Amino acid sequence: MHPRRELTVELGDRSYPIYIGEGLLDDAGELFAQRGISKKSPLMIITDENVAERHLEKLQTVLVAAGFDVSTAIIKPGESSKSLAVLESLVTKALDAGLDRKSTIVALGGGVVGDLAGFVAASYMRGLKFVQVPTTILAHDSSVGGKVAVNHPLAKNIIGAFHQPELVLYDLNTLQTLPKREISAGLSEVVKHGLIWDPAFVQWCDENAERLTSLDADALGYALFMGCSVKAEVVSKDERENDLRAILNLGHTIGHALEAVAGYKELLHGEAISIGMVGAARLAVKLGASEDVYTVTKRVLSQVGLPVRLPEHLDTDAIMEAMMHDKKFAEGTMVFIVPIEIGKVEINKSVSAALIREIVEQLKQEAV
Amino acid sequence: MHPRRELTVELGDRSYPIYIGEGLLDDAGELFAQRGISKKSPLMIITDENVAERHLEKLQTVLVAAGFDVSTAIIKPGESSKSLAVLESLVTKALDAGLDRKSTIVALGGGVVGDLAGFVAASYMRGLKFVQVPTTILAHDSSVGGKVAVNHPLAKNIIGAFHQPELVLYDLNTLQTLPKREISAGLSEVVKHGLIWDPAFVQWCDENAERLTSLDADALGYALFMGCSVKAEVVSKDERENDLRAILNLGHTIGHALEAVAGYKELLHGEAISIGMVGAARLAVKLGASEDVYTVTKRVLSQVGLPVRLPEHLDTDAIMEAMMHDKKFAEGTMVFIVPIEIGKVEINKSVSAALIREIVEQLKQEAV
Ligand SMILES: NC(=O)c1ccc[n+]([C@@H]2O[C@H](COP(=O)([O-])OP(=O)(O)OC[C@H]3O[C@@H](n4cnc5c(N)ncnc54)[C@H](O)[C@@H]3O)[C@@H](O)[C@H]2O)c1
Ligand SMILES: NC(=O)c1ccc[n+]([C@@H]2O[C@H](COP(=O)([O-])OP(=O)(O)OC[C@H]3O[C@@H](n4cnc5c(N)ncnc54)[C@H](O)[C@@H]3O)[C@@H](O)[C@H]2O)c1
Ligand SMILES: [Zn+2]
Ligand SMILES: [Zn+2]
Repeated sequence: MHPRRELTVELGDRSYPIYIGEGLLDDAGELFAQRGISKKSPLMIITDENVAERHLEKLQTVLVAAGFDVSTAIIKPGESSKSLAVLESLVTKALDAGLDRKSTIVALGGGVVGDLAGFVAASYMRGLKFVQVPTTILAHDSSVGGKVAVNHPLAKNIIGAFHQPELVLYDLNTLQTLPKREISAGLSEVVKHGLIWDPAFVQWCDENAERLTSLDADALGYALFMGCSVKAEVVSKDERENDLRAILNLGHTIGHALEAVAGYKELLHGEAISIGMVGAARLAVKLGASEDVYTVTKRVLSQVGLPVRLPEHLDTDAIMEAMMHDKKFAEGTMVFIVPIEIGKVEINKSVSAALIREIVEQLKQEAV
Repeated sequence: MHPRRELTVELGDRSYPIYIGEGLLDDAGELFAQRGISKKSPLMIITDENVAERHLEKLQTVLVAAGFDVSTAIIKPGESSKSLAVLESLVTKALDAGLDRKSTIVALGGGVVGDLAGFVAASYMRGLKFVQVPTTILAHDSSVGGKVAVNHPLAKNIIGAFHQPELVLYDLNTLQTLPKREISAGLSEVVKHGLIWDPAFVQWCDENAERLTSLDADALGYALFMGCSVKAEVVSKDERENDLRAILNLGHTIGHALEAVAGYKELLHGEAISIGMVGAARLAVKLGASEDVYTVTKRVLSQVGLPVRLPEHLDTDAIMEAMMHDKKFAEGTMVFIVPIEIGKVEINKSVSAALIREIVEQLKQEAV
């Protein structure tokens, strides 16, 4: 077996390990078997066309050689595949392949594949086992915490479940084929995990930005390990998002609104929340935090290749409107995650819409 | 408040009460509030056209008077509404009505509404609170146990979740508007609960069949209380259907196959499993049980107005084929629930297909 970093997401009897390392796809057979994945019942790998072309054959070959009964389903890449229609087509494939209650769904891909395949696993026969094999940097985030979902034409991630995987297998080699823009977008959530929890890790990102964007395996392995660890710790303390887990939404209130208004094409998720995190940092300073919070946040995000200025043509009214519809405004209260210092956030439940509008306007003027 | 029978489904921190009595819709406001249903977040009643016409106004008026923020969604009656397409349309309604994470979904109707609305509750924003207000006799079964689901064109109940309600409110008055055929079909699961668990209750059904089919409120209240109690006890011991819960499938292996082959229109669920239970009783006798098992099973089912003979035009090959696809055959093993005596069943994992084929043929000759 290849050397690997390892951590456990602690969730009582739903705890599971995350393995991170180069070449781990080779070890999939052994690691799956160790975690009790059935070789008798058919297993289905769900992936998208881009990932299938580059990494499916490897995983499939390894699993077949290890004695698993493997079928595959390949979806179109992109957010639009996270739909009930695609879910239904995957259930058709699962039925055709004879998946039964002891079968396993394997998600090979980024967050889109993970969220969609995860919801198939959560709902097919009311729940199958599930394995995440993330192939994007962003997916270090989506593969921890058990949130799975599809979109509705009117709202993202609105139909879903909490469904924890049996294991997460992160082969750093698969990341080598990522397009440049996806690398930066993924690092956005890595930086976020530092910003909400760990000042030393933010400093490390600041100093190692260049190694990260060039996919240096050792730096990347460390960063993903740290990102997963922070998320795992938060999720362990609050699996069902009652309170603490909300801090993971740093940058997301503005970010989701930007994605919605820009139409999910112009801005990648990681790019949108990068701008959102700069906005949150600006807000923090306005509410009394040190200027540093803003300077450091913006610098680190820029250095990993992310946008920090809000595209001017996006309409402020539309952005504000989108925020009002965001599901984080439970019972009408306006909630913002505010970074009061680097590595530490606060949940502020009384931010006025007027102040946010001001921030949105300023984000359009941000120097780059 | 009206007098009522009461029982608790024991599931640790997911335990919930079932209230059964005449006129309980009047008490919905108080009972909802007692169980922590929010008055601040909008609540949505999901029902079908038949039930809406007869009972929606009453429930809605009571809840509005009690201070709840009530919206409604009315679906077409019938099994075909248990689909992802209808789920999506209900999510649209929920978004329009502004449902948030503290909202509640109320299912007012039979098992179709309960299963569908329950899956909306399980998946909208990854899980809302849920209340069952069953209006059919059959729904005494579907409202206990937390199984919720929609159908796929190729398989019934294949996409779903386990999602327990906060409470079940059974107003016996709503049952007075049930069509005769639905009354008998619902009693099928009542009798089933006796057959798997309680010989004295089977005898009581035998002696009170006439009171049941004529909807005598006291008899009905008792029968529903007993049926719910048996199911609750089984479910409490095995929430996720690992072993014991399988006994609830008495009559369902053959029954589901009949529904599939007859096309869900010719045979109601309760009718199909009535025939299935007669088949299971025949099988039991073949495997050594006393002849009584067969005689009593058949007599009770007949007396509550259910079919006990398999319609001759349903193709035996097609029925066998449908059974092979049934999800209860995990890892290829053939599992049958066999009533070894009245009130007691056994899970038999090695029934041969040939024997079942023989039973199917005999069911077509059954004297009525
Ligand atoms: N569940 C959660 O907790 C959570 C958290 C964050 C984000 N998400 C979700 O994740 C999704 C975004 O994830 P993503 O950014 O990974 O998107 P993605 O899955 O769409 O991947 C981005 C693009 O990269 C391609 N790709 C993936 N791996 C590749 C590889 N190794 N080589 C070459 N190309 C590759 C994909 O085909 C796609 O075109 C969103 O839908 C978001 O809602 C979920
Ligand atoms: N979740 C479970 O554990 C479980 C268990 C058993 C059955 N089910 C499901 O339940 C469904 C069958 O339930 P059902 O038989 O209640 O079907 P249903 O909901 O379709 O109701 C039967 C018919 O009666 C009508 N109706 C309902 N209440 C009425 C009333 N008070 N007055 C007049 N008409 C009324 C309905 O409109 C419908 O036409 C199936 O989909 C089955 O899969 C689920
Ligand atoms: Zn995110
Ligand atoms: Zn049934």
